[in-house]
Amino acid sequence: MNYKDELLKAHKRILPFIHKTPVLTSTLLNEISEATLFFKCENFQKMGAFKMRGALNAILQLTETQKNKGVVTHSSGNFAQAIALSAKLLGVKAFIVMPKNAPKVKKDAVLSYGGTIIESDSTPIARELKADEVVKEKGATFIHPSNDIPVIIGQGTAALELLKNQPDIETIIAPVGGGGLLSGTALATNFFGNNCKAYAGEPDEANDAFRSLKSGKIEINTTTNTIADGLRTQLGSNTFPIIQKYVSEIICVSEDEILTAMKLIWERLKIVVEPSSAVAFAAILKRKEIFKNKKVGVILSGGNVDLTNLPF
Amino acid sequence: MNYKDELLKAHKRILPFIHKTPVLTSTLLNEISEATLFFKCENFQKMGAFKMRGALNAILQLTETQKNKGVVTHSSGNFAQAIALSAKLLGVKAFIVMPKNAPKVKKDAVLSYGGTIIESDSTPIARELKADEVVKEKGATFIHPSNDIPVIIGQGTAALELLKNQPDIETIIAPVGGGGLLSGTALATNFFGNNCKAYAGEPDEANDAFRSLKSGKIEINTTTNTIADGLRTQLGSNTFPIIQKYVSEIICVSEDEILTAMKLIWERLKIVVEPSSAVAFAAILKRKEIFKNKKVGVILSGGNVDLTNLPF
Repeated sequence: MNYKDELLKAHKRILPFIHKTPVLTSTLLNEISEATLFFKCENFQKMGAFKMRGALNAILQLTETQKNKGVVTHSSGNFAQAIALSAKLLGVKAFIVMPKNAPKVKKDAVLSYGGTIIESDSTPIARELKADEVVKEKGATFIHPSNDIPVIIGQGTAALELLKNQPDIETIIAPVGGGGLLSGTALATNFFGNNCKAYAGEPDEANDAFRSLKSGKIEINTTTNTIADGLRTQLGSNTFPIIQKYVSEIICVSEDEILTAMKLIWERLKIVVEPSSAVAFAAILKRKEIFKNKKVGVILSGGNVDLTNLPF
Repeated sequence: MNYKDELLKAHKRILPFIHKTPVLTSTLLNEISEATLFFKCENFQKMGAFKMRGALNAILQLTETQKNKGVVTHSSGNFAQAIALSAKLLGVKAFIVMPKNAPKVKKDAVLSYGGTIIESDSTPIARELKADEVVKEKGATFIHPSNDIPVIIGQGTAALELLKNQPDIETIIAPVGGGGLLSGTALATNFFGNNCKAYAGEPDEANDAFRSLKSGKIEINTTTNTIADGLRTQLGSNTFPIIQKYVSEIICVSEDEILTAMKLIWERLKIVVEPSSAVAFAAILKRKEIFKNKKVGVILSGGNVDLTNLPF
């Protein structure tokens, strides 16, 4: 696959439907990190997260016959909302498999975007089986939240935009969960950066990607006890090899480090970001020597948080 | 005074030292309010609030002799920080009279900007007397947080920028405390708007400005029991007549209405704003009939909140 071409085509394809998100800077955060940071604010993206990019890119490439039968995914997080809203914008039906015990606020968000919720048990297997059922019954097309190639390419357009704005960026860092954002970011970094390197931040408490890079095979999370709820998922068959090839290092951070980074972003940039977004900045603060005196792009993944349940 | 000229001169004067703050929009907040809202984000201003504009405009107009002797103000809020940072940027000494019992976080902020704190008792009279002392002892120039004319003009440059960006705005609304922001906003609205009208939001719990407009004389706050801590102050001899002449109406809102508006801004715009900023938006939601189907500029005054003590 010609990733360079695909990234450019994806960007052109989704541009009428997304926000070109702003890039913020902060003198104080530069001082603290001893680097020059460019925060790509996907918390300002439609529906509040970068996932909108991948969802749109996947649905926009379906045939008319496929579009008529709808799409299905399993997610209780931002991808559920991204598929629901993208489908709505494009006049396509969306079936979202969600665990019975998913928070009401997440279900309401999907419903508000016109998605149809299909309940399942909460294990990964149960969710996948339920999604398979919907594929068979409705003829809907399954779109994986992170391991789908058009989704990966779509997520990469955030870094692509950032590099077009700031071509002299020397490193880009993104958080890693299922790896859709990270693999897309790494592809954009490799094909559009000027000797630019890709890094990732990952919670200690869900460090499957870190261990996968060490062992050379996809490792399973042994805990997912992290506040960064968007990063509890696992690498997949498509995201892992891209990350292996194009990511320089995955930096793991503790829950305290995530909270400190999140608070600094809220206080200094005056923006609302979710804990997952703070993981990349936490990694910069933890391993300053890597980023010192460099121009660093930081992908802030999203801003969907429950304000009545903040960790501060 | 030729306010139109003064506003333009002030803007040119302070431009090298301020951020030209972004204007945000939200489809959902438009739907809720039934208006088209343009949020002028002074929470992204240097030091986190619009007060930077007035402080800079005041200090920049001092003579060299005055600058050498420094400036003094009394404030425990954003104006304290604004004077401290402006003075630092311009190489001027800043003396900030603060109540002994002011929160440590506020004192630390002033100190971090290089300001000298002079402690006083917490009554308004005690603070004024202490400021007078500093004027006499140090020869420093006193700058009032809201009633100083260069401060008023400086604060008006936020609305001036907004109107230059969006000349078709039909109404502008700002919160009112001491009235510096509101009177400056009203002047900019009158002299640079295209038949544009100025409104204000004020907490029920500190409604001196609302009552002053009714009675035709400066009224005193009987309570200041509002979460909007920036709006507990009183109108002054300069702000009141400008507000009387150029403001169409002051809309009072309850504490619950302020909280609801603040939460909507955080959730939907994904930005951190202080309760005082939410008062203007709360007023729009309360009196929809005034703003319905109109293009409305909303001045979001600042984003300095204590994240460990949020009202959600």
